[in-house]
Amino acid sequence: MANPSILILAGDGIGPEVMAEVRKVIAWMGDKRGIAFDVSEDLVGGCAYDAHGTPLTDATMAKAQAVDAVLLGAVGGPKYDKLDFSVKPERGLLRLRKEMDLFSNLRPAQCFDALADFSSLKREVVAGLDIVIVRELTSGVYFGEPRGIFKEGNERVGINTQRYTESEIARVAKSAFELARRRSNKVCSMEKANVMESGILWREVVQEVHDRDYPDVQLSHMYADAGAMQLCRWPKQFDVIVTDNLFGDLLSDAAAMLTGSLGMLPSASLGAPMANGRPKALYEPVHGSAPDIAGQGKANPIACILSFAMALRYSFDLGDEATRVEKAVEKVLADGVRTADLMGPEGGTPVTTGQMGDAILAAL
Amino acid sequence: MANPSILILAGDGIGPEVMAEVRKVIAWMGDKRGIAFDVSEDLVGGCAYDAHGTPLTDATMAKAQAVDAVLLGAVGGPKYDKLDFSVKPERGLLRLRKEMDLFSNLRPAQCFDALADFSSLKREVVAGLDIVIVRELTSGVYFGEPRGIFKEGNERVGINTQRYTESEIARVAKSAFELARRRSNKVCSMEKANVMESGILWREVVQEVHDRDYPDVQLSHMYADAGAMQLCRWPKQFDVIVTDNLFGDLLSDAAAMLTGSLGMLPSASLGAPMANGRPKALYEPVHGSAPDIAGQGKANPIACILSFAMALRYSFDLGDEATRVEKAVEKVLADGVRTADLMGPEGGTPVTTGQMGDAILAAL
Ligand SMILES: CC(C)[C@H](C(=O)O)[C@@H](O)C(=O)O
Ligand SMILES: CC(C)[C@H](C(=O)O)[C@@H](O)C(=O)O
Repeated sequence: MANPSILILAGDGIGPEVMAEVRKVIAWMGDKRGIAFDVSEDLVGGCAYDAHGTPLTDATMAKAQAVDAVLLGAVGGPKYDKLDFSVKPERGLLRLRKEMDLFSNLRPAQCFDALADFSSLKREVVAGLDIVIVRELTSGVYFGEPRGIFKEGNERVGINTQRYTESEIARVAKSAFELARRRSNKVCSMEKANVMESGILWREVVQEVHDRDYPDVQLSHMYADAGAMQLCRWPKQFDVIVTDNLFGDLLSDAAAMLTGSLGMLPSASLGAPMANGRPKALYEPVHGSAPDIAGQGKANPIACILSFAMALRYSFDLGDEATRVEKAVEKVLADGVRTADLMGPEGGTPVTTGQMGDAILAAL
Repeated sequence: MANPSILILAGDGIGPEVMAEVRKVIAWMGDKRGIAFDVSEDLVGGCAYDAHGTPLTDATMAKAQAVDAVLLGAVGGPKYDKLDFSVKPERGLLRLRKEMDLFSNLRPAQCFDALADFSSLKREVVAGLDIVIVRELTSGVYFGEPRGIFKEGNERVGINTQRYTESEIARVAKSAFELARRRSNKVCSMEKANVMESGILWREVVQEVHDRDYPDVQLSHMYADAGAMQLCRWPKQFDVIVTDNLFGDLLSDAAAMLTGSLGMLPSASLGAPMANGRPKALYEPVHGSAPDIAGQGKANPIACILSFAMALRYSFDLGDEATRVEKAVEKVLADGVRTADLMGPEGGTPVTTGQMGDAILAAL
């Protein structure tokens, strides 16, 4: 049987640096555990635009469709801020999400014990926090039509369309309930049903899916503004949160920042099962391309390495190997190894991106 | 000359209780300072639905249009959750905002020193925090057409439309810049220009208004997800934030919660100047109707009283009197007077809503 295949799209900014460390872990899996992957690499985002005039070529898109899993670094940077909307780095990422139909974006917001003091929140509010935001990723206002900037009389009008079908809501709700069953069996769904009809439909369909197929899961509903408040006040009240594309964007970023562990957080974007039974999948760190520190060896590769661990678990059914990687990360942190973003006020000497990767390999 | 006129719409839940305390302050202004108001009262929200089958009658709407300022308590409650969308309590509030054209919603997120320890954030992150979120309030996805739940093939589709015209963006930007000039001259504008064309237009127009009329104000732009993160990480980096209706809903609620002073925060919703030069205006606390504690004398009236102070400042040009009220609130807090929501772990006996109002009167 052929080796499972991975396409690496390192992207812009710190993407290539953190991905280099993931490659070490992939190599280690082959050398030490006999788990070999066929790894290919290609361009996405600003670097793809520089090379080809588009943030994602059709050829790269085809490769992404053909592999078992895509690992993505990060896209974007100030150099590309003035580009036309249609060729911005982000469009490459959005095309991947849409054409691979990666509707379920799992974003853990977890507080690593060794890092609890980095949070702007009090230790007792975040220590031990471990929640997952399931964000719908292929619909909503990110993709709805009509959209654009139009001329109306003598002024411009900017239009986007929030649009959700019943089946789009149902499938992401299902994935949240499935996840909850493997955790504490509790889901909170967030929308603005008090002001948006799309929110009313969201709430109804989530409730229907629950009542029909997941009555054992504890389900609650919350308006997204109240959800933002409650995440800031007492995030441990949640376990799995399910919400739409735009609310998920804001809420998951806020939740990630609250943990104090932003440089540590991975994510998985999953679609329907392929012919081989594996889901279409893309894994990426929650953090961005951090152009301000790119190329300086300062970036923290842990979020990207943990994204690969998620790939081991969700794409390759190698949960034990995933746990092995996660434990190695925990050990390294417990040993006090720190990249610059993890340095506390007490000081010390930060390690480089490469040294952090090596320390994790050693712990493996 | 006739006295300035105020319409009180106490609404649901704790609305009437906190408004009763505002009435004491209004009466004090007449008795002790010779500043008399013509006060009328009417229904909005669930109580209006109970009485008239609609959350806001045309007659009440006409009164709101005719007065110098509206004071609103809060709307909504579980009793009304199953009502049809068109008659939900919230529709009353949204109709007031829309028909009075209250496009600029000022939401201070301020941390009261005596309460800094109530925040889930570390004291140093929030102590002294004093920022204002200027939220566009009459357009965007709250009001855009088409909207509704439609049948498409054999499934339902929920649709809302995010829609902003150039002039809608320009006028709220202007109000943010004006406010910034009276503060630290710094505005941060938030949108999702990386994924939404309406965000691109928002960013362009805010920049144009700045370059043309407010080049002295320091302007920056941030994606709303990054904005949510930065509010959680280090809110003091901001002074005035300007954003659209939906982002403003989430971001201002998160910011309010972060201060630890939610029961203390007022808001002003302002429109264009009327014939008498005063802006159309509605004032309301940031907190909701809190049905769980309604009718028990536990509610904190301070947010509502400070909303009246904002009315004194913005509608009646009585800045000194507004400051007098604000100082009285500070004194009462410094003296350790606490409603139930302000009780720390050290305990003590909370005062009732009425006792808090009386303490503020005494301090006046
Ligand atoms: C880069 C951007 C298009 C993207 C989004 O808005 O979804 C990012 O913020 C994210 O959350 O993955
Ligand atoms: C009650 C509701 C309609 C309202 C809103 O969404 O605007 C509230 O959340 C607010 O922020 O004033």
